Amino acid sequence: VAPDPVIPSNDAALVDGLSGSTLPVADRGLQYGDGLFETIAVLDGRPCLWDRHLARLREGCERLGLPAPDPDVLVAEAQSLAAGCARAVLKVIVTRGDGGRGYRPPIPAQPRRILQLGQWPAYPDAWRTEGVRVRWCATRLGHQPRLAGLKHLNRLEQVLARAEWDDAAVPEGLMLDLDGDVVSGTQSNLFVLRRGTVITPPLDRCGIAGVARAVALETLRTAGLAVRVARLARDEVSGADALFLTSALIGCWPVRELDGEPFDPRALPPRLAAGIVAGVFGP
Amino acid sequence: VAPDPVIPSNDAALVDGLSGSTLPVADRGLQYGDGLFETIAVLDGRPCLWDRHLARLREGCERLGLPAPDPDVLVAEAQSLAAGCARAVLKVIVTRGDGGRGYRPPIPAQPRRILQLGQWPAYPDAWRTEGVRVRWCATRLGHQPRLAGLKHLNRLEQVLARAEWDDAAVPEGLMLDLDGDVVSGTQSNLFVLRRGTVITPPLDRCGIAGVARAVALETLRTAGLAVRVARLARDEVSGADALFLTSALIGCWPVRELDGEPFDPRALPPRLAAGIVAGVFGP
Repeated sequence: VAPDPVIPSNDAALVDGLSGSTLPVADRGLQYGDGLFETIAVLDGRPCLWDRHLARLREGCERLGLPAPDPDVLVAEAQSLAAGCARAVLKVIVTRGDGGRGYRPPIPAQPRRILQLGQWPAYPDAWRTEGVRVRWCATRLGHQPRLAGLKHLNRLEQVLARAEWDDAAVPEGLMLDLDGDVVSGTQSNLFVLRRGTVITPPLDRCGIAGVARAVALETLRTAGLAVRVARLARDEVSGADALFLTSALIGCWPVRELDGEPFDPRALPPRLAAGIVAGVFGP
Repeated sequence: VAPDPVIPSNDAALVDGLSGSTLPVADRGLQYGDGLFETIAVLDGRPCLWDRHLARLREGCERLGLPAPDPDVLVAEAQSLAAGCARAVLKVIVTRGDGGRGYRPPIPAQPRRILQLGQWPAYPDAWRTEGVRVRWCATRLGHQPRLAGLKHLNRLEQVLARAEWDDAAVPEGLMLDLDGDVVSGTQSNLFVLRRGTVITPPLDRCGIAGVARAVALETLRTAGLAVRVARLARDEVSGADALFLTSALIGCWPVRELDGEPFDPRALPPRLAAGIVAGVFGP
């Protein structure tokens, strides 16, 4: 079992539009994590949720004071890499490029685009229907409102959290923030069903605002469910009627077990879970 | 005036011991900021405070679960780059290398070493004797005890803070944390003199434990001063008798003005400031 997506190999990559697998060591993405990324599902040559990924990337560039890449250039590069791929993962990284004096960004910055095509993660199909086992992480997320919600390149907290366990049958861990509020999985957003209401944590202090999370919120609201964005204590998750996870690569996974506690993977009606999956991967 | 060190160019760099200016885009230093760095002053071909830099790097590797580079290899590479340089900046980056599945680190990791030699920052000599002008940053540091003190590659907070102003006569800004406690400069540690006692903030929740900070603490204690590591409120800094900054590149700068408020750059006895500078750059 190889549950997580492999970091794209260097086989198929474009750096500023040129085929290549390296970048200058002076790049601020390496030096400071000064940049953003998107992890995009490719199905039948099509980058899924492209407009949402692009919008999040553009918002991230605005918040970091980074010129956003030309969307026409980006889509052309993405399509050239994805063409002919039945299933793959497209990773798009935008850094502030080279230069600057220490932390001080160069003005104007010349951002660098890095697109990598990697293999599709071998998640068992059953995880979508039978649910997944998850665990609590000990590593907590610190608050940083200036960066909250963004998919930026400063991801050591997630690396430390994901290093806590080595069990291919447990594909995800849930993270608390330093206040003890529940935020998300290490690579997915979390939804909780409690007494008929679906709740997902706000991402105004930490966490990443997943594009699949937005799809799930819209799908559930359209279906007439009561949906709230609200802070969740740990015992509100443990005592919930159902838990499920979303991401652009997993679509929607119900949770069937959290650190030994069982959950009903069908308490979220399967047609709703399927609706989220269709929203994430559909045309 | 070019106050900050330029990010080392690619002219003189070693990647895993080989002369080169690029690294694979798959490197986790780029992908996640999964690594550490040291910024080392080189004087007359000698990397200053080498043992302290190496010890901090080793501690950082331990805390990130990263195999530390062989110190003999590292010193040989550093010396080969620094040989013959009158004044330069040596930057050492250690990343977790390529691979892994998503955030999950590869086991075992094969860390990558990147050494870059860059030009010495053109700080005016007068800043050591006459002091510098500094400002308050609006960007605040979030708490993350798991990473606090480390010189890791997740530095977006410092980038955002340093992007707040563009005035070559103001080389540094002071940063508060989200609780409003004073932590440090964007690229230096802060010391405050109040009623005969020197105080510097603890770095257990955020900030970087500078090697020059350690030199300063030892120098001041050896000189018989009362020295404390303690949290500082903003008005304890504004109302202090003296402020000074330390780093491996600046040595020691007294502050002469903080957002318009004057400070006496000689309230820290010049022989003590000179002692810190000698400790940072001396043999």
